[in-house]
Amino acid sequence: MKEYGWSRNVRQVDPYVPGEQPSDPNIIKLNTNENPYPPAPGVQKFLSSVDVTDLRKYPDPASSELVDAIADYHDVDPSQVFVGVGSDDVLSMAFLAFFNGSDPVLFPDVTYSFYNVWADVYRVPYTEIPLSDDFTIDPSDYLRKNGGIIIANPNAPTGMPLPLSSIETIISGNRDSVVIVDEAYVDFGGESALSLLDKYDNLLVIRTFSKSRSLAGSRIGYAIGCVDMIRCLNDIKYSVNSYTMDRITLGIGTAAIRDEAYFRECVDRIIATRERTTEELKKLGFAVLPSATNFVFARHGYIPAMVLFEYLRDQGIYVRHFGGKRVYNYLRISIGTESDMDKLISVLTDYIERERA
Amino acid sequence: MKEYGWSRNVRQVDPYVPGEQPSDPNIIKLNTNENPYPPAPGVQKFLSSVDVTDLRKYPDPASSELVDAIADYHDVDPSQVFVGVGSDDVLSMAFLAFFNGSDPVLFPDVTYSFYNVWADVYRVPYTEIPLSDDFTIDPSDYLRKNGGIIIANPNAPTGMPLPLSSIETIISGNRDSVVIVDEAYVDFGGESALSLLDKYDNLLVIRTFSKSRSLAGSRIGYAIGCVDMIRCLNDIKYSVNSYTMDRITLGIGTAAIRDEAYFRECVDRIIATRERTTEELKKLGFAVLPSATNFVFARHGYIPAMVLFEYLRDQGIYVRHFGGKRVYNYLRISIGTESDMDKLISVLTDYIERERA
Repeated sequence: MKEYGWSRNVRQVDPYVPGEQPSDPNIIKLNTNENPYPPAPGVQKFLSSVDVTDLRKYPDPASSELVDAIADYHDVDPSQVFVGVGSDDVLSMAFLAFFNGSDPVLFPDVTYSFYNVWADVYRVPYTEIPLSDDFTIDPSDYLRKNGGIIIANPNAPTGMPLPLSSIETIISGNRDSVVIVDEAYVDFGGESALSLLDKYDNLLVIRTFSKSRSLAGSRIGYAIGCVDMIRCLNDIKYSVNSYTMDRITLGIGTAAIRDEAYFRECVDRIIATRERTTEELKKLGFAVLPSATNFVFARHGYIPAMVLFEYLRDQGIYVRHFGGKRVYNYLRISIGTESDMDKLISVLTDYIERERA
Repeated sequence: MKEYGWSRNVRQVDPYVPGEQPSDPNIIKLNTNENPYPPAPGVQKFLSSVDVTDLRKYPDPASSELVDAIADYHDVDPSQVFVGVGSDDVLSMAFLAFFNGSDPVLFPDVTYSFYNVWADVYRVPYTEIPLSDDFTIDPSDYLRKNGGIIIANPNAPTGMPLPLSSIETIISGNRDSVVIVDEAYVDFGGESALSLLDKYDNLLVIRTFSKSRSLAGSRIGYAIGCVDMIRCLNDIKYSVNSYTMDRITLGIGTAAIRDEAYFRECVDRIIATRERTTEELKKLGFAVLPSATNFVFARHGYIPAMVLFEYLRDQGIYVRHFGGKRVYNYLRISIGTESDMDKLISVLTDYIERERA
């Protein structure tokens, strides 16, 4: 970039790079962990009932309708719930609110690659703690001086869950730090830390509607914690943007979380497809990490990940490939419909059979 | 708030307090500068065409559809446009992106009361420059060492516009600083700084769909500046939240800005109502600042503002009252429909006549 007079005061950052969003509907998109199924039927019903005249008015800044629905669902008090524009918005505000000390915030070296971006933009010192060789998290690594801790559980992009006992070791060993557990994928098989809320005032659990609720396009995330922690998050929100949640999104989110049966059905289907896909990939010579999410993280025995990534792309199947020494040979493959995964397996089978021939 | 172990690392802030959003539809809401007319008819048309299945997928992170529509409308290149979740989101990111120096950022002492909140949350040093006694801005006050400048034009809550020549004096006298002109209300009678964009690379103009486009409930704001400035804003956005604009809001905004005729009609009606309301208020003994916005800032000759504020509230009419020595005796009254303003004038007339009796 050219130098300007005003460049002297520009904040230097190293932004996150989101997965591609191609507009071609024929592409099989297994690159951003979207849910292959539509949102709950109540979402369409709500949309049909919207009176656009109301859009002239600001939304409820407290997002009470959605907060109440989430509180109902999780059986907590509404004062324990904070909502935002996707879990990224909630996480970003949590970094700003809680990670304001001089000791480093701790998170794994292989995890959601936005954590270090938020730390950088808000000038939060941090230490990345290496996962074990088998990509597991050792809770004892997190019992050191710190200014806060964030753990994705299940972790991404590995997909691997951490047992609740290990999460509790980290929370109980750090009562003077906020411990954020990012449960974006927990509905697909992880153990939630929500059951620990009554015991620990230093726990903040963060969730999203983007994966298990099929609403990536609506931008809804939330946090659950003790009342005073939620108050801190609201103070930050009201210091950044009073009205983050628009009127229509509030209604959409409320409709979605009220339909437990549909939610359960979609999640179960995705889990079943994941298990089948894992077996098929193993037959094709992939090592697949044990996933409790709506994606698998897999490495082929002898074909480099980049080669497969580009081949799949040429065949109209988008998956995700990350840089970084430890995961360079892995592909992160979102779980789509049965038919999406059949296509993936068939395209991979063709390639591998040709290689062998 | 109770002290917790984790309190040591919490960022201390002093949040903005938004105007009330009462749910009772019988209240005449003249407290948050909402547009009394519905959004453009294309918004309903778009909503009826939404395929909810698409909500399972992330939105376009670049918001291209809306960016292109805004660029078309203002006849600039799409690379000069940045969109966000209301102008508050855009302003917040602009503070974070551009006001990162050690010299104080300058803005008036009486202006949008979120500026000092953003400065505080992001640890930006700032100096509030007193408006003249008649609430005008003297551009020569802004020709001093600074780390950036932000001017609302027209100003809020005064409603008073600054001539373009004064804005240009500030921009041309500060080529080494980003000068943000916050034009939230410009469509109601101000002179836009957009015409200066080709001349100055240090100018950033910020707009909103909340007022003149009747879409406060949808959360859409935007910035226009030189390409590299917009790139800086996008770098910050991708360091905070990749997907700020949801799929439905992108379509709503696009539909709204494509309807120039409807927009013009609503704005003209509001301006006419404002002029009439101003005359009526003057007849009742109010001093009314000259407004180029969709609100008036008025002080009664002898009745304290708080007395009128509470009386109006009891009568079901909400207006806004701000603290602060200089404006304590003023009320900010949004311009509603003709009938809203008739009601306001009639209720005030009753009160004042009773006072006189």
